[in-house]
Amino acid sequence: MPLQTQAYVAVEKGQKLVQQTIELPEIQPGHVRIQVTHCGLCHSDLHLMEDDLGISQYPMVPGHEVVGIVEAIGSGVKHLKIGDRAGVGWLSNSCGKCKQCEHEQENLCANNEPLIVASKGGFADELDVNAHFAYEIPAGLTSENAAPLLCAGITVYNPIKRFFEEGMTVAVAGIGGLGHLGLQFAKQMGARVVAISHSDSKRDEAFKHGADIFVNSANPEDVAQVHGEIDLIIDTISAKHDFVKLFDMLAPNGTLCVLGITNEELKFLPAHLILTQKKITGSAVGSPKEMAEMLDFAAKHDIVTQTELMPMDQINDAIQKLLRNEARYRIVLENK
Amino acid sequence: MPLQTQAYVAVEKGQKLVQQTIELPEIQPGHVRIQVTHCGLCHSDLHLMEDDLGISQYPMVPGHEVVGIVEAIGSGVKHLKIGDRAGVGWLSNSCGKCKQCEHEQENLCANNEPLIVASKGGFADELDVNAHFAYEIPAGLTSENAAPLLCAGITVYNPIKRFFEEGMTVAVAGIGGLGHLGLQFAKQMGARVVAISHSDSKRDEAFKHGADIFVNSANPEDVAQVHGEIDLIIDTISAKHDFVKLFDMLAPNGTLCVLGITNEELKFLPAHLILTQKKITGSAVGSPKEMAEMLDFAAKHDIVTQTELMPMDQINDAIQKLLRNEARYRIVLENK
Repeated sequence: MPLQTQAYVAVEKGQKLVQQTIELPEIQPGHVRIQVTHCGLCHSDLHLMEDDLGISQYPMVPGHEVVGIVEAIGSGVKHLKIGDRAGVGWLSNSCGKCKQCEHEQENLCANNEPLIVASKGGFADELDVNAHFAYEIPAGLTSENAAPLLCAGITVYNPIKRFFEEGMTVAVAGIGGLGHLGLQFAKQMGARVVAISHSDSKRDEAFKHGADIFVNSANPEDVAQVHGEIDLIIDTISAKHDFVKLFDMLAPNGTLCVLGITNEELKFLPAHLILTQKKITGSAVGSPKEMAEMLDFAAKHDIVTQTELMPMDQINDAIQKLLRNEARYRIVLENK
Repeated sequence: MPLQTQAYVAVEKGQKLVQQTIELPEIQPGHVRIQVTHCGLCHSDLHLMEDDLGISQYPMVPGHEVVGIVEAIGSGVKHLKIGDRAGVGWLSNSCGKCKQCEHEQENLCANNEPLIVASKGGFADELDVNAHFAYEIPAGLTSENAAPLLCAGITVYNPIKRFFEEGMTVAVAGIGGLGHLGLQFAKQMGARVVAISHSDSKRDEAFKHGADIFVNSANPEDVAQVHGEIDLIIDTISAKHDFVKLFDMLAPNGTLCVLGITNEELKFLPAHLILTQKKITGSAVGSPKEMAEMLDFAAKHDIVTQTELMPMDQINDAIQKLLRNEARYRIVLENK
């Protein structure tokens, strides 16, 4: 028998969320049902509500930084039990058969499915998901802290982990929901850390989150001091910006990793890549294996998400606040 | 006292080479003088003769795939002695002080100097060069074979070595002077090797040089069979071509490494890089350390440059032949 629960629903494109009763399927083998206690609010929720990516299906329940308590469990699930704290992020399924899935890179499976599109997301009392994409939350992390790690956190952790080598200088461009976590992960992995922002307003906070150097990208002197010096730039900026300015900060063999899905093309002449051996790439959340690794790392190294807690029933106000760029840095909705 | 020798000189931009007497400096500490026996002809020679890169200085002696016999040696040179066979490639100097030079990455030094621009190149009876950029030629390589390895060879060896991991599928796009060596290096390192060409004309030769699969990029069926399958593409194509078509052949996490300096921009939307974690990069010849490693590898694994030997005094005919795209694959000028 399907289960009825309360959720905040995007009924159609461009509308406010409406509280409605929705149905979740009877618990299936390999699935878990989670009673949601916390859910982070991410820009991607807004993109999906507006169908900016062209993949949205309405009615839709947004929310993909979910933490809650396991309340039902399907057969075959070993790593979680009823009563455990569990988290769910961007992904809720993958094909399970391709080379990427076989190599535990489900985040790169061409047929993987975002939670919000394939299923019903976390702005709800309860959520049903393939347990392979539900992660035990380590005891050392509060639920409020853990929720944003499940999307913002893994998105910055993954490329730093992939490219970081001892002795590197790592920069994080854009000091927001992703960026303030990126600074902490880079610092805790042992990097010399550079924070890059388009004004001085986040200077103090950047140092607090682990930056050794602050670069105001509008200040030529700041930019000059890191010209050709950075080994890895994690570019979290989601607005239009100058990729070449960041590229020029890279040392030879350095990597520019973009995370913000914008409509702005990256354009480079072959000579720029050839003479410097610099790399341009991107990064896509993380696999379940990487997610578990990231959560452990965050608990062990005291990664702290700077959150603003709001009650779930104020979700529409929270969305407006995020749209006004007033969230510092991640709004987490609490479901009491 | 300066030494007088015979050389083929580009007196000004766009002119044929003219045989002239030139002066080489008296042998300096740390330098060697080489009596040239062989010099490969590379497209970059033509670019410099035409000042396509905006760095040419006339009069100029082109030629940067040089093999010959050491005939004079400055103080402090340990790794070569008079009578040795030695080779010189694209680079003839670097600053020696920067981070890249300290880490034996002189090819990435921002102030390194190409042989032809800083000094006098290999289309001459003799050549003077900083001995750090002169390499002993292993006994297993003929001089005719070794000469093109010093530019074409190192240019493809370096990125394959840098990015190759066991089990990878490596493609070489463009089957010419660089490409036919790339196929051999990739095969000998243990890759599954794909040759990509814009017609079927080089199919048989590609298999001969080590390809396991041949892809005619104008044939949609050929392209479909490698869609999303290749881990590393070494793009040696120096004419205008479709980077996106190559990019789409890459597997997730794959790398497109461009080697041809064209005026064609690489343009990619962030989403293409993010969802696939693909990398775009380039590669710049190699350091002296990498050069020695490549020469040893080539000798050990029987890498064979397919050459056409011509007498040095036919250099202008050789240039015309290269311009007509009739060289298969590398013309080597012999100085008798």
